[in-house]
Amino acid sequence: MSVITKKIKLSTKGDTDIIDITSQVTGIVSKANINNGVVTVFVSGSTGALSTVEYEPGLVHDLKKLFEEIAPKAGTYQHNLQWHDGNGYAHVRATLMGPSISVPFVNGKMQLGTWQQIIFIDFDNRPRSRELVVQVLGE
Amino acid sequence: MSVITKKIKLSTKGDTDIIDITSQVTGIVSKANINNGVVTVFVSGSTGALSTVEYEPGLVHDLKKLFEEIAPKAGTYQHNLQWHDGNGYAHVRATLMGPSISVPFVNGKMQLGTWQQIIFIDFDNRPRSRELVVQVLGE
Amino acid sequence: MSVITKKIKLSTKGDTDIIDITSQVTGIVSKANINNGVVTVFVSGSTGALSTVEYEPGLVHDLKKLFEEIAPKAGTYQHNLQWHDGNGYAHVRATLMGPSISVPFVNGKMQLGTWQQIIFIDFDNRPRSRELVVQVLGE
Repeated sequence: MSVITKKIKLSTKGDTDIIDITSQVTGIVSKANINNGVVTVFVSGSTGALSTVEYEPGLVHDLKKLFEEIAPKAGTYQHNLQWHDGNGYAHVRATLMGPSISVPFVNGKMQLGTWQQIIFIDFDNRPRSRELVVQVLGE
Repeated sequence: MSVITKKIKLSTKGDTDIIDITSQVTGIVSKANINNGVVTVFVSGSTGALSTVEYEPGLVHDLKKLFEEIAPKAGTYQHNLQWHDGNGYAHVRATLMGPSISVPFVNGKMQLGTWQQIIFIDFDNRPRSRELVVQVLGE
Repeated sequence: MSVITKKIKLSTKGDTDIIDITSQVTGIVSKANINNGVVTVFVSGSTGALSTVEYEPGLVHDLKKLFEEIAPKAGTYQHNLQWHDGNGYAHVRATLMGPSISVPFVNGKMQLGTWQQIIFIDFDNRPRSRELVVQVLGE
């Protein structure tokens, strides 16, 4: 059994920036030289989230609209009233989505569907430099 | 340490079909002959999701209603306007929920509560043949 | 490779009680004496959920408000009509959030951000005694 932990560095635009990170994760899984196991992608930070989607401009638009309906940027948040950083909407969206995703791989290949990409969503209200943790665990 | 990866084949009705897959996952964990570890269930596809629920008809109804309120089937989606397949609602619901679930097991027994079942939700707008990946990892 | 499984016992107030469990999980990871791997926290039960947040009173308030908007406590739920326990809202919120979280650790240290805490949310409509499963897996 082996555990390989790497990082992906990203510069995001913030404001619910939805970024396809599939190729970076695929590269890390390939180089890990582990046949079968699970890869966990985790954001160290409380205003980002991970999931999968069919990555195309229409759905990127639709997801941004959905998040704006669920937790509007201009809504009233106690977080904003206390800390004055204006990103209360980003925090609650991120908590709802969750900070990690786990994808099984077999013979070095992640078991994603053909039209299924891994995405990082940066909900924060400003551009951010992010480091995502990518951990490959298996044998 | 061992990794066992199996598949569950399902025929779903689509349209937010909520299916109790606990017995299939339990069977795979039992046969894996691994005492302690984690089982990851993952849908290869971008219109399905995994979670747990007390599986009874009332909550199945309530969940379908909740998803219809969060992302209505008849809403306006750029995905539909571009691809004309009418399942934009299914994609955004699936991304919000996430494609995987991880359940620890001890002495071969998943640590589910008594009234807690593992569910696969097929949000797509048509019946689908699905293969879920079930990966048992531990020692 | 080693797997260590422990439990965290909690007395919650219910009613979307949001509890910071970071120090308990950190303690279990430290004592597991495993360098690198993933810790999975799982609630055995269908009315609780796990995620992360910047744990401060403003966001605790904002999250409770968000969940009340997504699935109101006083809404109409078939679960309540059939079982008369009044916690239909708690079940659907928990299914939406999911019952587990996975956090990678490196050199015994969880890769959380500085302002990112692990939370257990008890959505149930009464105080509960809870046992969370904490499984540390790695080498």
